[in-house]
Order: sequence, then structure tokens, then C-alpha cells
Amino acid sequence: MTDEPGPSPIDRPAGGMSVGRLEAFSDGVFAIVITLLILDIKVPEGAHGQLGAALAAQWPQYVAYLLSFLIVGIIWLNHHATVNLVSRTDHRLQVYNLGLLLAVSVLPWPTALLAEYARDGTADDQRLAVLIYGGTSTAMAVTFNLLWRYLIKRTALHRPGLDLAGLAVRNRRYNVGLAVYPLATAIGLVSPVLFLVLMLALAGLYLLPTPELRTDA
Amino acid sequence: MTDEPGPSPIDRPAGGMSVGRLEAFSDGVFAIVITLLILDIKVPEGAHGQLGAALAAQWPQYVAYLLSFLIVGIIWLNHHATVNLVSRTDHRLQVYNLGLLLAVSVLPWPTALLAEYARDGTADDQRLAVLIYGGTSTAMAVTFNLLWRYLIKRTALHRPGLDLAGLAVRNRRYNVGLAVYPLATAIGLVSPVLFLVLMLALAGLYLLPTPELRTDA
Amino acid sequence: MTDEPGPSPIDRPAGGMSVGRLEAFSDGVFAIVITLLILDIKVPEGAHGQLGAALAAQWPQYVAYLLSFLIVGIIWLNHHATVNLVSRTDHRLQVYNLGLLLAVSVLPWPTALLAEYARDGTADDQRLAVLIYGGTSTAMAVTFNLLWRYLIKRTALHRPGLDLAGLAVRNRRYNVGLAVYPLATAIGLVSPVLFLVLMLALAGLYLLPTPELRTDA
Amino acid sequence: MTDEPGPSPIDRPAGGMSVGRLEAFSDGVFAIVITLLILDIKVPEGAHGQLGAALAAQWPQYVAYLLSFLIVGIIWLNHHATVNLVSRTDHRLQVYNLGLLLAVSVLPWPTALLAEYARDGTADDQRLAVLIYGGTSTAMAVTFNLLWRYLIKRTALHRPGLDLAGLAVRNRRYNVGLAVYPLATAIGLVSPVLFLVLMLALAGLYLLPTPELRTDA
Repeated sequence: MTDEPGPSPIDRPAGGMSVGRLEAFSDGVFAIVITLLILDIKVPEGAHGQLGAALAAQWPQYVAYLLSFLIVGIIWLNHHATVNLVSRTDHRLQVYNLGLLLAVSVLPWPTALLAEYARDGTADDQRLAVLIYGGTSTAMAVTFNLLWRYLIKRTALHRPGLDLAGLAVRNRRYNVGLAVYPLATAIGLVSPVLFLVLMLALAGLYLLPTPELRTDA
Repeated sequence: MTDEPGPSPIDRPAGGMSVGRLEAFSDGVFAIVITLLILDIKVPEGAHGQLGAALAAQWPQYVAYLLSFLIVGIIWLNHHATVNLVSRTDHRLQVYNLGLLLAVSVLPWPTALLAEYARDGTADDQRLAVLIYGGTSTAMAVTFNLLWRYLIKRTALHRPGLDLAGLAVRNRRYNVGLAVYPLATAIGLVSPVLFLVLMLALAGLYLLPTPELRTDA
Repeated sequence: MTDEPGPSPIDRPAGGMSVGRLEAFSDGVFAIVITLLILDIKVPEGAHGQLGAALAAQWPQYVAYLLSFLIVGIIWLNHHATVNLVSRTDHRLQVYNLGLLLAVSVLPWPTALLAEYARDGTADDQRLAVLIYGGTSTAMAVTFNLLWRYLIKRTALHRPGLDLAGLAVRNRRYNVGLAVYPLATAIGLVSPVLFLVLMLALAGLYLLPTPELRTDA
Repeated sequence: MTDEPGPSPIDRPAGGMSVGRLEAFSDGVFAIVITLLILDIKVPEGAHGQLGAALAAQWPQYVAYLLSFLIVGIIWLNHHATVNLVSRTDHRLQVYNLGLLLAVSVLPWPTALLAEYARDGTADDQRLAVLIYGGTSTAMAVTFNLLWRYLIKRTALHRPGLDLAGLAVRNRRYNVGLAVYPLATAIGLVSPVLFLVLMLALAGLYLLPTPELRTDA
């Protein structure tokens, strides 16, 4: 019944969840993940005058941290722009949202894995770390697109007056987004360093305020 | 006095707590618990080419993580649907809510216990880990039902226009929920792996958008 | 200027902070502290059939956890009931609030200290752990009372229609609260176990819905 | 398009992000960082009657903790006062805000670094720890000022009725703020202890309710 409710005079219907609380919970998860990441950057102990060298040797930790920070920041921006389209939620939307939050919550673990093995692991270990990190970011893109596609389809939940042309532009972008992480991962199987550079470049590209990219900010 | 206040023209009465802040605090706790869980999945150190094997050996950590993530996600959905019924709170409701948050906050610990002992412990240790995990989930179900039953009874806090037939349906479901975790725990005393499978199946069943289950989403 | 602003037609004045955001930030800190506490309860490693005994030996961790959970829960309830009295904030109120949040944020550390030394430390170490835990709870009560007294005095921030008789009752209670933690700490210098029992009893007493205690819920 | 949107009758336009959600996410990050800091203050293990001495030897941890707590508290106050000026956001504002949150999220790491090396490191290590801590606080001031300057310039986002004279006063203060952290860091290269004292004094100065300083509270 909640999947196709008729118009209701009640502001916060007992059979549905307000968008506000879905946002609050999701914002909490995004904010915690983005902040927990720093716990994986370690302080070298007992460096006895070699602190600079010890810190420099940790560079994969910094790169992995920065990358995951940006990926979560971007998915948060997209999440807001998406949830912003609806005025109500239903059970299925909440389940899709939980799926996205699951992929996001997992991210600190592949981040630590990548930081640990991107430089010092054997070639096999490096590839596995890249694969797991790339797989997690792909899972974020896939679960986000499930949420997005469900929302587009479920017009009963839409806010009045949506800009349908704008939605079509975003739809194309999100489709591109779906391909980007698996591609970078495939390249990363050859070179983990290239993987890091490529992923950082993609994130920077998104955040740059180029005209085309800012349309759904 | 706050337990039975008369109708008040003031929006946020000084003698009561707004539902919004109870939700915000609870959402914070749910979001933090669901996100902290990942900290217990460790990165194997010094795997020297055996990273794949080392990661595979950690499977109980992944299963325990996923299970706890789903259990917290489900209790969050139910919590929202329940708090959504009231337009005001009182001291007793807040205390019951704190009781539920206590059970939820504890969950990362039995999760880590289960991850550590579900496979490698002696039969006795495995049983104890299952018992503590099952006991914590049962405590979540019990404290949730205390909150729920108090809310149903305390009509003075209800939002106007509640669907009483819908409440009766949910009441039956929550009663079933009370029995499910102790039953799975009893079975888990025989086989910890069966316990994990059963608990995951129950969570998946809840999240599937079957017609009957989505009525209170 | 912000300390004594005249009535303003603007809902969220540029020279002041909305109560909502002060609550949101404080709720975040309370929720995180109450949830982080579980990270200090350790999972015994390599128990090889002795998991029950290993877990039982950790009882001070469970008691310290429960106590800190309840103390944070109670201060959150009081914080809400207090912030609920004002319709605007000023710089000084925000600084007092930061002072309270500082005392609350510190709590996980004395909790871990008490858990580590309440049973196994020498008599001197036990006394020091009790003193630091008692001192932190006293600091929470003192900073809370600074916030409270400032609010009572600063009528320009009050919401219209406050129940002054109710405020007087709460004022007496908070004065009692100020004495309770130092007293329990003094007793705790003789017996750490008595300290834990006494502090838990005080928390339970507060949460019980006795008529007198629920007036400011 | 979102960078210069015309006036819209829709409250939460699909092409922009509500200020409320930007605040909620930022508050979450601030609250988590300020609360996570305590995890870096360790409990001495096995002190066997020497707990007092062991705790006293940890003084750099307490000072670094307090300093970072105050710095995050102050940036939160300034962040609120700044975001409070706008009624809408755009992509660029969100990216600047993410930049500030990045600098804030990083802080627990230089805090731990400073706590570890401020007293026990060699002179070189001490200088490096001071430099990294000072650099992070400077990055916070710089990213905050980027956000501030963008907001001042982008009048299309402003709330109606902003006090322009008050903005000019704040602008001067924030300019001073930009110079303060690099200066303290330069002095800290000579003496880490002086760095800690100076930084704490600056934070205390800000929080004191002197007439001039509270104008933008």
C-alpha cells in the first residue's frame, strides 16, 4: 500500500517515512564515514629524529584517505540532489537507501586495505586491494543508481514541478558514472599508482565548477 | 504531570520533549552504530602474497558485519515508524527509548565476539558467542516492544488520525518479532553457522518488499 | 550586542545562532559519546574454551560502560529540557554549551580508566581512577549548572510563557545534583565498588518515573 | 545554472541544496571530529601503583586534546555564523564547504602527532609535528576564508536584510584570523611548548565574551 499511496492531507503519514528523517540518518552515516577515515592514518611511533622519513613513507595512506574523502563527499552531494526530488518515501526507497549506505559504510575497510598494500604488497596483493577498493566504489555507484532509477520511475513520490529535462541530463551523467569506476579498476589491475591518480582525477573533475558538471549541484 | 498533559497551545512545551529532538538523537545513535561496525573488520598485515587467503579466512567478520548492519537498519525503520505515531513525548517514553538505544549501542561488541569465535572457538566458546549475540538482539526486540506497547497505550501522546487497524497489524508483527530472535538463538546453540544463515534470512525477509511486510514501512 | 538583542522580526538573526543548530551539534556530540563507549569493551582473544571466564573477569568494563551510558543519557535529557527554555542563543550561551560538551566528550577516557583500574589496580591507583571519573562527572554537573544559571538569568533569551514555578523546582533539583557526584566520589575513595553501586543507583533513581522526578522530563 | 539562479517560488529547488542539509552534514562532521579526539588519549596499562606518574607524563596528550577541541568548537561557531548568512547554496559553495570539512576531518591526526612528539621527540621531530599541526590549522583558516569570501561576493545567495556593516567587521576579524595560525606556527618552530601555550591563549581569547569579539557570535 505504501508503494502507491493516494494523496493524503496528513503531513507525515503514519504509513510512510518523512524525507527529513531519511536525510538525517543518511547524513549521519555519510558524516561518520567521512570522519572515521582519519583513524586509519597512523602516527609513527618512536621515530627518533626520522619522523619526516617515516611520514613520507606513509604516502599511500594519505592518498587513499583523500580519495575516499572525495568519493564520500561526491556521493553525499548526489544523494542530496536525488532525495531532494521526492516529497515522500516508501519501504522500497528506504531499502535501496540502506543498500547505498551499506556500500558507503564499508568504504573505510578497502581504504585501509589499499593504504596497506598499494605500495608494499606483492603484485598479486596490490591487484586484490585495487579490486576490492574498485569493487566497493562500483557498489556505491550501482546502489546509487538503483535508488536513482527507482525514484525516477516512482512518480507518485515526486515533488511537484520537477524539471524533467534536467532529470534527463542527470540520468545521462549517472549512466556515465556507472562505467567510470569499473574502468578505473580494470586499469588499476595493471598499475595501482595509476589507479589512485585516475580516481583522484575523476573526483577532482566532478568537483570543479565546470558549467556542465554543476547543473545538478 | 508530563505523563498526562492536557492539550497545550505551545508548540514545544517546556514540560515535554519535542519528538524531533528524540528522533535526532536516536538517528545519531543508529547512524553511528551502523557505521562503527566496519572498524571491527581488520586489514591483514604483512600478507606477503597471501592476501587473498588471509581475507577469505576472515569470512565470519563479513557475515557478522552484514548481519548487524541489517539488524540496526531494520530497527531504525521500525523506530521511525513507531515514533512517527506520536506528536509529543514524556519522561517514560524517553526512558524506554534510552533502553532501546542501550541495546543498540551494545551491538558492536557481540558482533566482534561472534566474528572472533563463530568459526575458531571451541564448541563452548561458539555457543557463548551465539548466546550473547542472540541475547543482545533479543534485548533490542524486547526494549523496542516496551517502547511500542507504551506508545499504543498512551493515547494522549498520539498524533491525531492514527489508523487503528494498521496498528493492530503491526502489533501482531512485532509480537512475532519478539519470538524470532530467541528461537534463532536456540537453534544457534547447535550450529553457529546455521544461526548466521537463519538471522541473515530473517533480515532479508523483512527487507524484501513483499506486500504484507511493507505495510508499515 | 548579541548578548542583549532587542526583539527581532527576523526568524534566524545574522547576529545570533538558532537554537536548532545548537541542539543539532550537541545531540551529535551526545550521540557519538554514548555510542563510542562500547569501543572500550574488549573481546578476549584466544580464549580456547575459557571464554566464559574471560568475559566474567571483564565485569568492571560492563559496569563502567553502563554507568557512563546512563550519565550521558541523563545529561542529554536535562540538556534538552534546558535548551528548550530559550528561543534564541548568544555567544556566552554557546561558550557555556561548549564547556559542557567538553566535559561530556572527555568521559570515555575516565570510563576506560575506571574499567582498567577499579578492580585490578593497587589501592592508590583505584582511588585515582575513582577521583578522575568522579571529577569528570562533577565537571559535567558544574558546566551544566553554569549553562542553566546563565539561562535562568538571561530572560531576554527565554521563550514566551515559561512556567516560573516549574523552573524553581528544577533549580532545586539541579542544586542537589551538584552535590551528588562529589559526595559519591568521596565515598568512592574508600571503596571503588561502592562508588560504582552508588553511581548506578543514582542514575536509576533519576530514570525511574517517580512523580517528583518526572516533572522536568 | 545553479551558480546564479533567479528567484524561485519553490522552497527547496531541485537544482540547489537546502542550507539545512549542508548544516546538518557539517554539524555531523564537526561533532564527530570533536568527539573522536578523546580516542587518542590512552589509558596507561599495568601502572602497578604508578598510575599518577603515568598519567602526569601524558600531559602533551591533554594539551593537544584541549587545543583541538577548542579549535573545532571555534570553527563550528564561525561556520554557523557564516552559513547563517545565506538562504540557498550552490555547487561551488558546497565544494568550498567540503574543503573546509576536509581540513577539519584531518585534525585528529596532527593532534595525535603533536601529542606524541611535542615533548619526547628530537628537536627536528618536534618542529615537524608543530609544522604539520600549524599547517592543518592554517588550512582550516584558509578554507574557511575561501568559503567566507565566496559567500560575501555571491549576493544572490544572501538572506534578505543582511547587516553589511557587521559583515565588514567580521571580514576584518577573519583576515586577522588568517595570519594568527601561521605566526604561532613560526614561533612554535623555536619552542613547541610556547606553540601550545600561544594557541591555547588564542582560543581562550576568542571564547571570552569581550564586547568586540562577541559581535558575530
